Amino acid sequence: MKTPLHYLVAARQSEMAELEQISRASTLVASMSELVHALQKERGLSNIFLASGGAQAQQVLQAHLPQVDEAMARVCGVLEALGERSPGAHGARLFNAIANALQGFEALPLLRRKRDALELSAEDCTQALIRMIAACLTVVFEAADSASDPDVARLLVALFHFMQGKELAGQERATGAAAFTSGISKPERQRHWLHLIESQDRCFQVFADFASEAGAERWQLQCGSCPDMTVIERLRRIGCTAGHGAPLDGSLSLPWFEACSSRLDAMHQIEAFLALELQAQCLKKLDQAGAALAQQQALLESMLAPATRAEAAAAFILSPAQSGVALPAEGAYGLQLEKSIVGLVQEQAARLQDMQTEIDKARSTLKERKTIERAKGVLMNYRQLSEGDAYKLIRQTAMNQNRRMLDVAEAILATVDLLPGSTNS
Amino acid sequence: MKTPLHYLVAARQSEMAELEQISRASTLVASMSELVHALQKERGLSNIFLASGGAQAQQVLQAHLPQVDEAMARVCGVLEALGERSPGAHGARLFNAIANALQGFEALPLLRRKRDALELSAEDCTQALIRMIAACLTVVFEAADSASDPDVARLLVALFHFMQGKELAGQERATGAAAFTSGISKPERQRHWLHLIESQDRCFQVFADFASEAGAERWQLQCGSCPDMTVIERLRRIGCTAGHGAPLDGSLSLPWFEACSSRLDAMHQIEAFLALELQAQCLKKLDQAGAALAQQQALLESMLAPATRAEAAAAFILSPAQSGVALPAEGAYGLQLEKSIVGLVQEQAARLQDMQTEIDKARSTLKERKTIERAKGVLMNYRQLSEGDAYKLIRQTAMNQNRRMLDVAEAILATVDLLPGSTNS
Repeated sequence: MKTPLHYLVAARQSEMAELEQISRASTLVASMSELVHALQKERGLSNIFLASGGAQAQQVLQAHLPQVDEAMARVCGVLEALGERSPGAHGARLFNAIANALQGFEALPLLRRKRDALELSAEDCTQALIRMIAACLTVVFEAADSASDPDVARLLVALFHFMQGKELAGQERATGAAAFTSGISKPERQRHWLHLIESQDRCFQVFADFASEAGAERWQLQCGSCPDMTVIERLRRIGCTAGHGAPLDGSLSLPWFEACSSRLDAMHQIEAFLALELQAQCLKKLDQAGAALAQQQALLESMLAPATRAEAAAAFILSPAQSGVALPAEGAYGLQLEKSIVGLVQEQAARLQDMQTEIDKARSTLKERKTIERAKGVLMNYRQLSEGDAYKLIRQTAMNQNRRMLDVAEAILATVDLLPGSTNS
Repeated sequence: MKTPLHYLVAARQSEMAELEQISRASTLVASMSELVHALQKERGLSNIFLASGGAQAQQVLQAHLPQVDEAMARVCGVLEALGERSPGAHGARLFNAIANALQGFEALPLLRRKRDALELSAEDCTQALIRMIAACLTVVFEAADSASDPDVARLLVALFHFMQGKELAGQERATGAAAFTSGISKPERQRHWLHLIESQDRCFQVFADFASEAGAERWQLQCGSCPDMTVIERLRRIGCTAGHGAPLDGSLSLPWFEACSSRLDAMHQIEAFLALELQAQCLKKLDQAGAALAQQQALLESMLAPATRAEAAAAFILSPAQSGVALPAEGAYGLQLEKSIVGLVQEQAARLQDMQTEIDKARSTLKERKTIERAKGVLMNYRQLSEGDAYKLIRQTAMNQNRRMLDVAEAILATVDLLPGSTNS
């Protein structure tokens, strides 16, 4: 028969295995961050190239492609190291997200051929790359959702929301550039533009809630001192307040694009810092867990005599205090050792419980995001709303009914099967 | 570079690995159910033995011990087969719960020696066995909490609450027997007795919410047709309504004990059925997952040409529909195959999402139970309340504030660190 001590150690080893897995997943997330940044740049350059009928940006675009390919190769290398079987209840969803992202990778050569032959509209090319980047971000989301260490989970939640906010900033760059280039103001595009600004702000708010002090500070500094933001805010005002059909100055397209690009590059610096911080946190946690395991094993080896164990166990079972609520009185059976074994099991139980509570907090943020996204999708699909209008409808309903947006989103998802003609199931 | 199809299959394999693990955990739960039943009987007999100063039940008790030991040996055998590293975020907590239960196993010989030598009071012996059984039930709880298949999780949640209800019924047997044997009515004991009845009912309500139709039906039948319940309800009324200090008829102790024991045996029959049903469900799910995996692999082998894959991926990336919200129009690229690959990834994502939603429901029930239990423990510890009074305080506060009990319990746990002199952290 294995001893309680054996399972006490097995519990620690199980934690270590989880940490090793999330450490590998964090490396994947870091490489995804590089790839997403490279893809965002390819998307921006492709947009200029296609919108100009192939006249502009061709050389810069072609010169940029090796960077994308290298970042993609690094992601694939990390995937090889990730192994085929992820422990953790979220393994299946992480792998499915990876399958989805790899589909995008495989499609890229064909997409590029069509683009280079001018067989794609700027809009279709942008949309294809938005989907490809969204697939990459879903991998980051699932990695964050599978983290079982609360400190690592918080950093992953922060990083995911930062990446998501940066992606929305990238989409805003494209939307604004298209608006100024077209030379005319359209209310539909203005609504979408405002939606992108608002969604970005929400992402960065969640980021700030979960980031480390150092990470949040860098972002504060960037927001407060970035000269690009002055340009961006001025051009946002011009673009978003122009009346229906009013002319827009086409020459603003270039300064807009450059200010946005400079802001995205600055964001990427922060993102790289966050990714490093995440990896360092994983290594630190692994070190700590390894040290705790070694200490526990050494302590336990000094208590292996079965008679001592039985008396220690009796201290537990005969203790008047409820197990888990309080430790038995020291020296109840006259032995410090007894308290050590009993204490180890109960301390470990309390620690695991506290970790679970912390992780639940981080996960509920991710769950809220996913639920609202899905409810938005239902409304877009079923009521033919734009993304921004779907979001506003959920928010307005929540305000009217004095409920949380999450509750409204859950109610939408719960009733969608009852609606006639719905294509969601 | 590995292909998307590779990870599509890896996602399925990851699900299968989870199912295999939960199947082994279900076998552990089934063996725990046998052990708990045997321990409950040992507790009841020990109580009679000690309360009679060793005059009664000695032979029956000694004859029963081999059954307990055999059940314990079976649990240990299943533990060996469970392996040392459980995948799943809950592995560490499951192992820690096992370590805690094994401590009880190791203490049992000493407990028995003290009991046989009449060195223990009936009350202390009962409390020790209550703690030992609670440790076994925590293993079942953690197994239920770690299940990643919603149908299996539902059955585990149902079984855990049934076992918990049965354990409360066992404690009620001891409380009632002590009341009648003492020959005098005490208000404190009456309150505890009523609390045990109420807590049982709540457990069986949750059981009914999560059980299969067949399981719930068996329980309904048992409740409706059990002649013991007539005796039990009559004696509950006599015991619980007698005035402070009023005499109780000591001769009612035996019929009370026998009716309760007969009811516990009937419950154990149902429990055994639930355990079998659970194991059958695991095997069925494993079969289904294996068949789906084989089908997927066969389908994917027919699509391995890289050119086809790239076109299929392009169908995904260039599709105007949002990925995950709707499938691309059939034949968008003229190939049925394309839709198959895109469809597989998206179907799998939707299926995994639906599973997660279902599991979240089952887990939230477990989380609610655990949170309220912990808040009760805080109140018992900090305000020196009995378990029943702590529960009532939480319920009354929730009613007064028009909030859920879970919210009140969470608020208690969130503020406990702020309270002076609290020993919880």
